[in-house]
Amino acid sequence: MTDTEIALIVGAGGGLSASLGRRFARGGVKVALAARDAAKLSGLCEETGATAYSCDASDPAAVADLFSSVTSDLGEPDIAVYNASNRARGPVTDLDPEAVLTAIKISCFGGFLVAQQAAKQMVARGNGAIFFTGASAGVKGFANSSSFAMGKFGLRGLAQALARELHPQNIHIGHFVIDGGILRAGDPRGDRGPEGMLNPDSIADSYYQFWRQPRDSWAWELELRPWVEKF
Amino acid sequence: MTDTEIALIVGAGGGLSASLGRRFARGGVKVALAARDAAKLSGLCEETGATAYSCDASDPAAVADLFSSVTSDLGEPDIAVYNASNRARGPVTDLDPEAVLTAIKISCFGGFLVAQQAAKQMVARGNGAIFFTGASAGVKGFANSSSFAMGKFGLRGLAQALARELHPQNIHIGHFVIDGGILRAGDPRGDRGPEGMLNPDSIADSYYQFWRQPRDSWAWELELRPWVEKF
Amino acid sequence: MTDTEIALIVGAGGGLSASLGRRFARGGVKVALAARDAAKLSGLCEETGATAYSCDASDPAAVADLFSSVTSDLGEPDIAVYNASNRARGPVTDLDPEAVLTAIKISCFGGFLVAQQAAKQMVARGNGAIFFTGASAGVKGFANSSSFAMGKFGLRGLAQALARELHPQNIHIGHFVIDGGILRAGDPRGDRGPEGMLNPDSIADSYYQFWRQPRDSWAWELELRPWVEKF
Amino acid sequence: MTDTEIALIVGAGGGLSASLGRRFARGGVKVALAARDAAKLSGLCEETGATAYSCDASDPAAVADLFSSVTSDLGEPDIAVYNASNRARGPVTDLDPEAVLTAIKISCFGGFLVAQQAAKQMVARGNGAIFFTGASAGVKGFANSSSFAMGKFGLRGLAQALARELHPQNIHIGHFVIDGGILRAGDPRGDRGPEGMLNPDSIADSYYQFWRQPRDSWAWELELRPWVEKF
Repeated sequence: MTDTEIALIVGAGGGLSASLGRRFARGGVKVALAARDAAKLSGLCEETGATAYSCDASDPAAVADLFSSVTSDLGEPDIAVYNASNRARGPVTDLDPEAVLTAIKISCFGGFLVAQQAAKQMVARGNGAIFFTGASAGVKGFANSSSFAMGKFGLRGLAQALARELHPQNIHIGHFVIDGGILRAGDPRGDRGPEGMLNPDSIADSYYQFWRQPRDSWAWELELRPWVEKF
Repeated sequence: MTDTEIALIVGAGGGLSASLGRRFARGGVKVALAARDAAKLSGLCEETGATAYSCDASDPAAVADLFSSVTSDLGEPDIAVYNASNRARGPVTDLDPEAVLTAIKISCFGGFLVAQQAAKQMVARGNGAIFFTGASAGVKGFANSSSFAMGKFGLRGLAQALARELHPQNIHIGHFVIDGGILRAGDPRGDRGPEGMLNPDSIADSYYQFWRQPRDSWAWELELRPWVEKF
Repeated sequence: MTDTEIALIVGAGGGLSASLGRRFARGGVKVALAARDAAKLSGLCEETGATAYSCDASDPAAVADLFSSVTSDLGEPDIAVYNASNRARGPVTDLDPEAVLTAIKISCFGGFLVAQQAAKQMVARGNGAIFFTGASAGVKGFANSSSFAMGKFGLRGLAQALARELHPQNIHIGHFVIDGGILRAGDPRGDRGPEGMLNPDSIADSYYQFWRQPRDSWAWELELRPWVEKF
Repeated sequence: MTDTEIALIVGAGGGLSASLGRRFARGGVKVALAARDAAKLSGLCEETGATAYSCDASDPAAVADLFSSVTSDLGEPDIAVYNASNRARGPVTDLDPEAVLTAIKISCFGGFLVAQQAAKQMVARGNGAIFFTGASAGVKGFANSSSFAMGKFGLRGLAQALARELHPQNIHIGHFVIDGGILRAGDPRGDRGPEGMLNPDSIADSYYQFWRQPRDSWAWELELRPWVEKF
């Protein structure tokens, strides 16, 4: 273990993962970013000093390789954040089964793969944290959203099972129910009025504080939405 | 549509699926049974007059073929029951990723495939029912059960999403949270005292009554456990 | 215990309680009906042969008297149904605290009082059933509905606690989440289209079937809504 | 409104409320503490500069008076925390109905009264926060805990209803599910091993951070338990 903490964010791109990268960096944490295409991460790497990795998060061998590389380059991650997500949209009758399977593999199975690799190191070491970015689709199955419901319910089931399994091994699990649109650059307020959309920097702050909870009072889940969001 | 009702049970073997087959047959419903290996269903077919089909429920083409064959042989199913399930057991660090993916495909993705084929016929026809056999693992993620948690949470998410999508199209969705051991033949009481385990005939009666609910008061979920079961 | 089964329905009036009374009577069950004002029950008593009692369900002594009278007149109830409900409507800032307290006492505390009296007999006897009529307000706290949220969440908490406590004592608990408008006489379909509102006779059938579940596969909760209801 | 923020904690004594008082004071927030017996708060008042008030939180007039006094003495509270709780313990058959009603009034109705008085000021003012201390008994009804189940489920229903009603009015609702024993002075670790019990200072930090969430990403609930706690 190094003196500097290491964070690995899988499913990195713009939006939340960029804010997480910046938040960790600001906390003195070394950041590894993984995405299917690492090239798109170059700007964020320059800005935050992060290291980028290419990884298909739904491929067991690729995820194992990712952990090997990160560990070799930076050290074992103290926290792994699974942020990848995919869905097929539309009525159940219209969905392409292969697209649905891909969505489940990316939204849920990939979360398992990353959690498993992280847990192997963290159980041996006796500490760590594994966080998952969920969605309201993980607690409520919406019409015309059966693909996303499977992926995000499944991811939440994984997180809850791991909280029961790994909390007593000093590994902190976090599942974040993000409910509402996330603000994007160039869209300073969205069309929802002031603070009507989730600011990814705010979400990142919540992940960071969650990570810092002392283990006598750990949460395993947090639901975040804008003040004006219907739920 | 034929005058006689048709029920298709996917994931048939002993236990609950056999009880369902008998219950449907007793109600005058023609039964189609699908299993990976149809040969093992011959006894139940003789007993109930059911027709058996071989089908890998996690294979999109195989499920489409199944519906074609059943429809051609017996008619379009009025009710499809997804009863298949699979899991990899053990601590997250010990699980074989391929076994976990297989478990998710059988427990959850196969449910989607069957629901999709059923919905295609039922939406066009304007009626039908699609039922899923869940488990307590679908509402509570247990330690050392991350594989089952993903599969059964995912299946429940699918069912809830389809209830919101298909109930208003006159298609009744049912998700059954079976909590406790199911009694097997040759084990008249289990070791839990009288009625200490779920009798599959009792569960089958509950499915049947659920199917017969008038649409002015539909449930989408039912949780069943023995009176002595801790929860 | 008499040979004929006895049902006690507390919070009787029109609607669901009348349908329950008829359903029990049709099953050969002797019915006791309790309402604040027994006079309004005379028509239903004539129709079903039920006996009416006046009782303020939120008054401990009155509920104890009710059980004494019913037991003396008809025998100990085999099933007690708590059907009373009350709410104060409006934004939290506008509610009258006394009206809110009354609503909590009728919606929730009265359920406790009836359950307690029933449990005293049933625990001693070794069997029985206690059912509660809940609402979607008991699983989802709606805006401008804080009074109803307290009463119905509280009632659901009571039911779940009693299921854990009394199921192993052979006393069956039922909590019914009624989600949607109940059809009233003179309003054959409501304005929601065919079967767009809950028919109280359908709900009563569900209560009755729930009561008849064999104890190897008991539910403790059932959520019912019209097929077209948004949820 | 004053420049200095004001926090009102109702249901103050030792434990969590003392930690909350210290946490607010450390953040430069003026603190008002209310308890049935204000005399017992003198030590904490000396330590934190808080002002103590005597108040029966289940009495509408007393709660209205409390808000008048606090407002007159310190200003309108920016945050009100409802921390009072009461229960009758034991099997449902053994409970004293009057004790159960008292428990509901303190655990739930008092929360409503405080929320209502706070909301009257906050809605008019256009900002504020109202927090409730819940328990695992508010999300799971335990055997022999029917009294606490009603009170804490009811309190959670109130909080969820108010989140839907008041979040869009810029009033932040928080409901905290405290699951596990809270460490007391003189019992440095409890018997659960290191950090095996909830440290009230940790809980207070979580309340404080929750209060500081930007409104673009508000939570309404947080569940906290020690890392070793079974759930």
